[in-house]
Amino acid sequence: MSKKTAPSSPEARLPKGLFDISAGEIRASEQMLATIRRVFESYGFEPLDTPAIEYTDALGKFLPDQDRPNEGVFSFKDDDEQWLSLRYDLTAPLARYVAENYQSLPKPFRRYQSGPVWRNEKPGPGRFRQFTQFDADTVGASSVAADAELCMLAADTLEALGVPRGQYVIKVNNRKILDGVLDRAGVKSQAQRLAVLRAIDKLDRLGIEGVRALLGKGRKDESGDYTKGAELKDDQIASILKMLEPDQSEPAAALAQFGGDGFKEVTEIEALVARAGYDDRIKTDPSVVRGLEYYTGPVFEAELTAPIKDDKGQPIRLGSVVSGGRYDGLVERFTGEKVPATGISIGVSRLLFGLQRLGKYKDSAAQGPVVVVVLDRDRIADYQKMAQELRAAGIPAELYLGESGMKAQMKYADRRVAPCAVIQGGDEKAKNEVQIKDLILGATLTSIEDREEYLKKQAEAQFAVPEAELVGAVRKVLSRHKS
Amino acid sequence: MSKKTAPSSPEARLPKGLFDISAGEIRASEQMLATIRRVFESYGFEPLDTPAIEYTDALGKFLPDQDRPNEGVFSFKDDDEQWLSLRYDLTAPLARYVAENYQSLPKPFRRYQSGPVWRNEKPGPGRFRQFTQFDADTVGASSVAADAELCMLAADTLEALGVPRGQYVIKVNNRKILDGVLDRAGVKSQAQRLAVLRAIDKLDRLGIEGVRALLGKGRKDESGDYTKGAELKDDQIASILKMLEPDQSEPAAALAQFGGDGFKEVTEIEALVARAGYDDRIKTDPSVVRGLEYYTGPVFEAELTAPIKDDKGQPIRLGSVVSGGRYDGLVERFTGEKVPATGISIGVSRLLFGLQRLGKYKDSAAQGPVVVVVLDRDRIADYQKMAQELRAAGIPAELYLGESGMKAQMKYADRRVAPCAVIQGGDEKAKNEVQIKDLILGATLTSIEDREEYLKKQAEAQFAVPEAELVGAVRKVLSRHKS
Repeated sequence: MSKKTAPSSPEARLPKGLFDISAGEIRASEQMLATIRRVFESYGFEPLDTPAIEYTDALGKFLPDQDRPNEGVFSFKDDDEQWLSLRYDLTAPLARYVAENYQSLPKPFRRYQSGPVWRNEKPGPGRFRQFTQFDADTVGASSVAADAELCMLAADTLEALGVPRGQYVIKVNNRKILDGVLDRAGVKSQAQRLAVLRAIDKLDRLGIEGVRALLGKGRKDESGDYTKGAELKDDQIASILKMLEPDQSEPAAALAQFGGDGFKEVTEIEALVARAGYDDRIKTDPSVVRGLEYYTGPVFEAELTAPIKDDKGQPIRLGSVVSGGRYDGLVERFTGEKVPATGISIGVSRLLFGLQRLGKYKDSAAQGPVVVVVLDRDRIADYQKMAQELRAAGIPAELYLGESGMKAQMKYADRRVAPCAVIQGGDEKAKNEVQIKDLILGATLTSIEDREEYLKKQAEAQFAVPEAELVGAVRKVLSRHKS
Repeated sequence: MSKKTAPSSPEARLPKGLFDISAGEIRASEQMLATIRRVFESYGFEPLDTPAIEYTDALGKFLPDQDRPNEGVFSFKDDDEQWLSLRYDLTAPLARYVAENYQSLPKPFRRYQSGPVWRNEKPGPGRFRQFTQFDADTVGASSVAADAELCMLAADTLEALGVPRGQYVIKVNNRKILDGVLDRAGVKSQAQRLAVLRAIDKLDRLGIEGVRALLGKGRKDESGDYTKGAELKDDQIASILKMLEPDQSEPAAALAQFGGDGFKEVTEIEALVARAGYDDRIKTDPSVVRGLEYYTGPVFEAELTAPIKDDKGQPIRLGSVVSGGRYDGLVERFTGEKVPATGISIGVSRLLFGLQRLGKYKDSAAQGPVVVVVLDRDRIADYQKMAQELRAAGIPAELYLGESGMKAQMKYADRRVAPCAVIQGGDEKAKNEVQIKDLILGATLTSIEDREEYLKKQAEAQFAVPEAELVGAVRKVLSRHKS
C-alpha cells in the first residue's frame, strides 16, 4: 500500500441526484415558468417566497420515504442545537407562513410560489435530490369549489404550455374514500394505514400485483431491495383492491358503493367541472391517492397521455406532472384552529422533460454576441472600445479575452453562435477601417457552386467599412438574419 | 412547574436570519433581475445553473467567518457519510463546474448565474443567512482586460438600474499589493496573513483604529464579543496601515511605492478604463482587499455614494452592492492546471434594499383580479363559470371562495386591489343580468360634493348588464383605469 503524504486535490464532481442546468435548458425553463406564472396570475394568485431552510418541526414529517435518513429530508443542527431542514415541498412552508401571519392575510389567501425543493431520496433515473416546483394554493376555503378550480387551473396551464386537449388528463379522487374503506376493513393502526396509502400510490409503477404484495407480506424490487408490506389479512386486501378496480366506464358510480363524505365531494367536483365545460379532461379516478401524508380530502394529479419515448424509442413512464390535494390539518398543527386549504404543485423539471420529449420547449442556442477579435494585443483598449460602442447601440457584443490566435478566435465566435465578427489588423488600422465578417452567411458559402454567385456572396459575407461606420455595418448584417 | 403530557404543537416561526418575501418585493426584485440579465447578456455572458448542494471539499473553505460552526457554511452528511454543504457563493461551484467540464467548454467560458446562497452567519441587522447573488465570470482569460471589463459591466448595470452617474463608484485594487506589503513586513504565517486580510476588509465598518486593534492584540465589538487580533509587531502594523492611508488624490501614484505586479496591473486597468471613458466612476482605492480568501489579483467593489437613510432618517451603512476579483487558483485546486478566472457578484437583496431607499423599484401592489362575488352558495358553479369566461377573454378573474357575506367579500375585493366586482343576486338572476361594481371609481365617490355629479358617477360606478355582456362590461371598466 502506498503512503499518502501530500494533501490530495478535491475531485470535481456533484453528489448523486444533483445536476447542473445548461444555458439552453435554462432558457426553455424560463419560457415555461413565465407561461405558468401568467396563467396562475389570471386566476388571482399572488407570489410569495419563503426561504429554503425551515425548522424541522415546522415542516413536519409527511414524506413517503420513511426508510431514508431523516425520512427523506436534508437536516442539520443550528448553532443553538435546534434542527433545521431544507424544505421538501412548498406546502409545509406555506402552512408555517399562514400560521405565523394569519391575522394580517386576506382570507381566502391565494398565493403561488416557485422554487427548488430537496429530497434526500435514493437517486436513480428520474429521481432527483433537487427539483423545481411551481405551486398554487387557496387557504381559508373549505368549499370543494376551491379544489375544482385548481383542477381547472391545472388544465388551463397545460393547454397554455402547448399540450393539446386530449393529450392530458386530470384525475380526481378523495382521501376520505380510502379512509372509509380502511375503516370498514378494520385497518386501525396508523402505520398500516400509511403503508396502504403508499402501496396504492405505486399502482401506476408496480401494477395491481405489486400493490397486492405491498398490502400483504412485502415485495422485492428490481434492485433486490425488499420493501416490507402492510401485513394485512387477505379479506382486508381484497376489499381495498376492490376499490382500485371499479367499473372504469362509470368511476363515480362505482365509488358510490363506498358512500360517505368522500363520494359526496367527488360528485360535487364533477358537477362544478361539468358546468364549466372541463368534464372532458377532469375525471374521477378511484386509484389516485397521492403519497403525502397530509392530504385530508380531494386529491388530484395530471398526466400527459401522449406516449413519451426515450432517445432509443423506448416508452418512458413519466408519472404525474401536476399533483395536489386538500390539507385541512396542516395550519391547525401550529395554531390548533381549523384552517381549510388546498393546492396544486407542478413538477417543473419533469413537465419540461415531458414537453421536450413531445417536441416543445426545445433547448436552443440563442444567437450569441458579436465577437470583437483581438489581433494586436497592445491595442486591446481599442478593441474593448469597439465592443462598448456596439453595446451602447443596443447590440450584444463581446471582446475576445483569451490568448489564442485568429483561427481559434473565429472558431470561438462560431461556438458562441455569433452573428458576425469584427476584425481590425494592422492593415485595416492604417486605413482606419474595420472588417465585418458575417458568420451566418459565411457558413453557407461552401454550398454555392456557381462561381459568380460565390464571389458575390463572399463579398457580402466579409467587407471593410470606416471605423466610424462600425455600428451601422453590424446592424446591416444583423438585419440580414432577423427571423 | 407544570408537567407536559400532550405533544406540544410546533411554533410557526422562521430561524433567525431567514425571511419570507412579499408579493410586492418579489415583483420589484424580478424587474431588477430582468434588467441585470439584459445587461449581462449584452456582454455575451450565458446562463448556467448549479445545484444548491455540493460536496464540502469541492466548495473549499474560503469564507471570512472562521469563528463560526463549519466556518460559516451549512453542512450535513450524505448517507454514504460524505460531507455536503449548501453553497456559500456562486464562484466555488463555478470552479467545480469548469474543472468537471473543462474539455467541452468554449474558452474563455463566460457565464452568469443568479440564485440564493447560504451563510451560517451570526444573524443581525443586514446580515442574512440566505440571500440572492447575481454573478458574471470570465474563465480562461488571464488578461486584466477581463477584470476591467467586469468593472465596466458593474457600472453599466448600476446605470441600467437607474443609479445616475456620480451616485456610485467602482473601487479597484489588487491583492498582490497587499501580498507585497506583507512580504516586506515579514508577515509569513498564513494564519496571520488571513487575519490581516480580514481586518482590512472591515476598515469601512471599524475605521482605522478598529483595524489597528485587529492587526495587534484584538478588539471587543459592541455586543461584547472579542475578536482575537493578528498579533503583529508595531512596525509591521505601521507599514500595513501606511498602505491604507496613501495620498487619496493620487491613489495609483501612492501605490507605486509598493511596485511589483500588483501595481502594474492596477495601472493597466486604469488605462483600459480611461480609454473606454469609464475613469470618472471606476477608481483605484488601496483600501479595497475583499474578505474572501480565494482572490489572487485585481479585486473590486461597487458602492452607492448617495446617502441612504432608514425610516427614522438615520444614515445606513449599506456596504458594497457589487464585489469581485480574480481567482486564478480556484480551478487549479481540482485539476492541478492553471486556469485564470475573474468575476463579479451583485448582492441582489442588498442592492434592491439600497435602490428602494433611494425611491426606485418600490414594492407595489399590482392591480388584482376581477372578483366574482358569491351571493347564492347553491349557484357557485354559475359564478365559477363567469370567472372562467373572464379569464378566457384574457381578464384575470377570481371567484370568491371564502365563507363570508357580501360586505366581507367587498372588503376582500378591496384588499386584493380588484378593479371591479361582479355581482349576481336573486333579483339580477331573475332578469338574467349581472351587476358590475367599479371599485376604483367607487372609492372616489365620497370626495364628490356636487349632488348631480355624485349621482352621475355613482351610476357609472355600479351598473347592470345582461349576462351575455359580462366580458364587454368588465372591459369597459378596465379601460377607464388604464394608465
